[in-house]
Amino acid sequence: MPTLRIALAQVNSTVGDIPGNAAVIRRWSRAAADSGAHLVAFPEMMLTGYPIEDLVFRNSFVDASQRALRALAADLAADGLGELAVVVGYVDADGPAAISSEAAPGNGRRDASALLHRGEVAATYFKHHLPNYGVFDEDRHFEPGDSLTVVRLGGVDVALTVCEDIWQAGGPFTAARRAGVGLVVNINASPYELNKDDVRLPLVRRRAAEAGAAVAYVNMIGGQDELVFDGDSIIVAADGELLARAGQFTEELLVHDLDLPLADAAPNAELATDAAKPQVEQEIPDDMAIDQIVLDFALTANEDRREGGVTERIADEAEVWAALVMGLRDYVDKNGFRSVVLGLSGGIDSAVVAAIAVDALGPERVTGVSLPSGYSSEHSKDDAADMAKRTGLTYRVEPIQPMVDAFLANMSLSGLAVENLQARVRGVILMALSNQDGHLVLTTGNKSELAVGYSTLYGDSVGGYNPLKDVPKTMVWQLARWRNTQGDPPIPENSITKPPSAELRPDQKDSDSLPDYEVLDPIIKGYVDHDLGRAELIAAGNDPALVDRVLRMVDLAEYKRRQSAPGTKISGKAFGRDRRLPITNRFREGN
Amino acid sequence: MPTLRIALAQVNSTVGDIPGNAAVIRRWSRAAADSGAHLVAFPEMMLTGYPIEDLVFRNSFVDASQRALRALAADLAADGLGELAVVVGYVDADGPAAISSEAAPGNGRRDASALLHRGEVAATYFKHHLPNYGVFDEDRHFEPGDSLTVVRLGGVDVALTVCEDIWQAGGPFTAARRAGVGLVVNINASPYELNKDDVRLPLVRRRAAEAGAAVAYVNMIGGQDELVFDGDSIIVAADGELLARAGQFTEELLVHDLDLPLADAAPNAELATDAAKPQVEQEIPDDMAIDQIVLDFALTANEDRREGGVTERIADEAEVWAALVMGLRDYVDKNGFRSVVLGLSGGIDSAVVAAIAVDALGPERVTGVSLPSGYSSEHSKDDAADMAKRTGLTYRVEPIQPMVDAFLANMSLSGLAVENLQARVRGVILMALSNQDGHLVLTTGNKSELAVGYSTLYGDSVGGYNPLKDVPKTMVWQLARWRNTQGDPPIPENSITKPPSAELRPDQKDSDSLPDYEVLDPIIKGYVDHDLGRAELIAAGNDPALVDRVLRMVDLAEYKRRQSAPGTKISGKAFGRDRRLPITNRFREGN
Repeated sequence: MPTLRIALAQVNSTVGDIPGNAAVIRRWSRAAADSGAHLVAFPEMMLTGYPIEDLVFRNSFVDASQRALRALAADLAADGLGELAVVVGYVDADGPAAISSEAAPGNGRRDASALLHRGEVAATYFKHHLPNYGVFDEDRHFEPGDSLTVVRLGGVDVALTVCEDIWQAGGPFTAARRAGVGLVVNINASPYELNKDDVRLPLVRRRAAEAGAAVAYVNMIGGQDELVFDGDSIIVAADGELLARAGQFTEELLVHDLDLPLADAAPNAELATDAAKPQVEQEIPDDMAIDQIVLDFALTANEDRREGGVTERIADEAEVWAALVMGLRDYVDKNGFRSVVLGLSGGIDSAVVAAIAVDALGPERVTGVSLPSGYSSEHSKDDAADMAKRTGLTYRVEPIQPMVDAFLANMSLSGLAVENLQARVRGVILMALSNQDGHLVLTTGNKSELAVGYSTLYGDSVGGYNPLKDVPKTMVWQLARWRNTQGDPPIPENSITKPPSAELRPDQKDSDSLPDYEVLDPIIKGYVDHDLGRAELIAAGNDPALVDRVLRMVDLAEYKRRQSAPGTKISGKAFGRDRRLPITNRFREGN
Repeated sequence: MPTLRIALAQVNSTVGDIPGNAAVIRRWSRAAADSGAHLVAFPEMMLTGYPIEDLVFRNSFVDASQRALRALAADLAADGLGELAVVVGYVDADGPAAISSEAAPGNGRRDASALLHRGEVAATYFKHHLPNYGVFDEDRHFEPGDSLTVVRLGGVDVALTVCEDIWQAGGPFTAARRAGVGLVVNINASPYELNKDDVRLPLVRRRAAEAGAAVAYVNMIGGQDELVFDGDSIIVAADGELLARAGQFTEELLVHDLDLPLADAAPNAELATDAAKPQVEQEIPDDMAIDQIVLDFALTANEDRREGGVTERIADEAEVWAALVMGLRDYVDKNGFRSVVLGLSGGIDSAVVAAIAVDALGPERVTGVSLPSGYSSEHSKDDAADMAKRTGLTYRVEPIQPMVDAFLANMSLSGLAVENLQARVRGVILMALSNQDGHLVLTTGNKSELAVGYSTLYGDSVGGYNPLKDVPKTMVWQLARWRNTQGDPPIPENSITKPPSAELRPDQKDSDSLPDYEVLDPIIKGYVDHDLGRAELIAAGNDPALVDRVLRMVDLAEYKRRQSAPGTKISGKAFGRDRRLPITNRFREGN
């Protein structure tokens, strides 16, 4: 059996920064060649970044992707890396692209994988299964491919597949079995979700068994807008044995020697005897064509034996913390911000955001501002100052009362209007500091508050990035306690233990307006994350009156969550729901 | 030939308000019966409203739609309307719905049409072509149907289709031709776009020719979140002749007598001689099954002859104005706001928004606030007061300088930070008035400003609804001039003619920071609406340096347009891009 040394490049990519991404590919291809690898695989859409959203509809962007791919092949050869097989994701199109997203959905755009060799694009494959649920909109953006590409490298047949192809039964993996390949390379931009790693390994094993081939699964790392990719690249043998696994949220090259069958001797599913056939639960027919490409490629023997090793999974809290730190760091850095600023109330939410920011950027890039009012308690000011002292972030105090008083002296306000006024004055101060000093403002509202609308529109909701947007309040506490066990504790114990309060009126507590977070969070999870209705939530054991109260709050809070004022569309292409540009859009039109 | 009297109910529906929508159907069914109609057709998703977004993933919502449909059939019979055939859109599901949008995209949910008769759901049809471009996300929400439903009513075969089925070739209309039907009923929720009516009529004619059948096209009216539906219902004969056409943005019942072939005598495409075949450009095969349902239905003769008439199209400015007025009115009313408030600067944008608001809601529901600073010119204050006097809206003056001075006295701010501070103080005042008096705040930034980011985040961008969100600045002027020719001119001439200025520093003009709107708007249109790249925009005759400047502004402004702070997703179901609830969600979970 020949031995293929494969390298999985678990690296970071930036949407729109095609030259920068190409440079990353060249650098890691060099590292792969230095390790003796025959083939290196990069993540899905490595060259363009993922997700590219409406950029896919711009001809010039698709052209740039196609041109950059050809230039990359040539550059790799010029770098002396022409003999290395480089598998890389990019955007392709079959023919001239249409003028507009309305002309034809998908419109020939392809989520593509290419194999580069000797200065040429030696093979391409178009993703077959397009996800269109959750964070994915690929039916809107791409046309599915309907043929499997198999490349023969030194006598070993390698099939190219992309991401969702591995999540759905049938299609490319079934065709790979029919083709009798030795290895399936699956390139991914698979966003992090809590415990997703628990799902990935069994999935990769099952597909390996179905294909009767080894599977090399490589995933991206890094933050991109609201998504964060966690790596967790995996290599399994044809029998499902886990051979190698990369870390989570780590940039690394996973290099492993795979003993693979020669193509002639490969177990072709149609020819093999029943006994030799790999076990599959169910034979799913596929109608994909198979494109076979044979390369002049030498599997030069390496003298040593390389094992990728299996990295241990990290704890749940460590996983979430790493996701939040990486998401924030990449948002700040990919967008070119030098620093961040946030209001430090002494409460748990802003303390956790400050700790995340310091872990992500270092204390010298983080400014915390105490914004005390007449209702702020002494402990609030002390806890904010303590947080600053523990972490070394830049600390300043901006009392809000003079500005609040100016509004109250000139307008006739009462009740909720006065409470919200304080939060809005804080927002104006933070935005003024942002304008004056160039900081990105961080928002600190957790998912529980956001869900029930317990925040002030244009007040504490002000900001360009919110690390806690998807973190329920109970998890905020859990993360704070966990983080304080990792080295010097950054978060004041008092911020963790005191009852939460917005401090917008005397002796105010969250519990005046909200159910306890321990009973609130499960209802939010059921209603928001799992689309459960009232009857289902009650059947799950939640108190009926509480369910009614929370559901009403969540429904009404929709107004606050849509802070960018909607308006009537008359062009069919207004910014908003149907016009989605990635925020970190580095693609510049020719200048 | 029997005569079918058809009534197209061009009416308004509200997302989530299933009981309210059912009441509308009963009321207009009564009117249709009173007019002697045999069949009345209501728009797509009439019973649930459109678009229902992520509500489709909630079992309880889909159950409510299905139950309400059956109850409606019984209620219509109880109303004495059992003999009337009532065609109505709703949401259906084939089997038990999944727990989550992630489990299976679409997941058996159907965008459905039902024919109700004698207290029963006599026939159902599931939409075949699902649009997934522009404002539509239907691949995410629904599964396509694969059979055509044909109902025989008093010897006439009528096919049921839904919306997009008419926009794409092949499928139901081809099957309808094969089935030899006399009439295709096409129910729609087709959002307004400028000049869309110019496209609809030729399309309906072409499909009629392809189907070899008369086509009755009924569309919704009314605003729903960012969409507005314009009606424009159409009836054409099998030969493409326009028989009747309803108005634009009008609630009405279009009643027309159609002479239709008896089913036996219908021109079956497979049997007819070549000469008798309707002319079609291209025969497109379809593989849809045909479900034939025969009802016990009497086409009772009417004594009179009813012609629906062809309503004249209105001018472009009238079309846009009607869309903006209807969009705002329905947003305010469907969400239960009593009144609106907006800042009146004396400039053209706020003047036009005020005029739209007064037309939509009446002057007694509109408050305009002059918010002068030290930089506000006398004419600004005068023009704002003049606007109030012309329209009768409630007018108040809130000088911002005392609050601005309080910030300046306590913080060290300069340049842009001071300019933005003024806009933000205005935002705080408007939001305080909203909290105090219950007004919805209207935003007044036009599409050109939004596109290039010429606005203050959390300043003039504050508000719950923006009538000008999709209106370029040049069109704002055009609308103002047009509106002033319709009766008493509401907009001060000076607001139209003076050079636009943000008045945030002495002698500031928009032209200091922006190209002239006459050259800016075409570039925005090409880049935003048509996805053109730099080279294409230059080839279209735009100045290269100007193109570079504008494209850079639009790209950078993406940060402002996403005012709701993004954050890292860890649940895969955070609010934001993949969690879309309609704002006007009237569906309450059982309470």
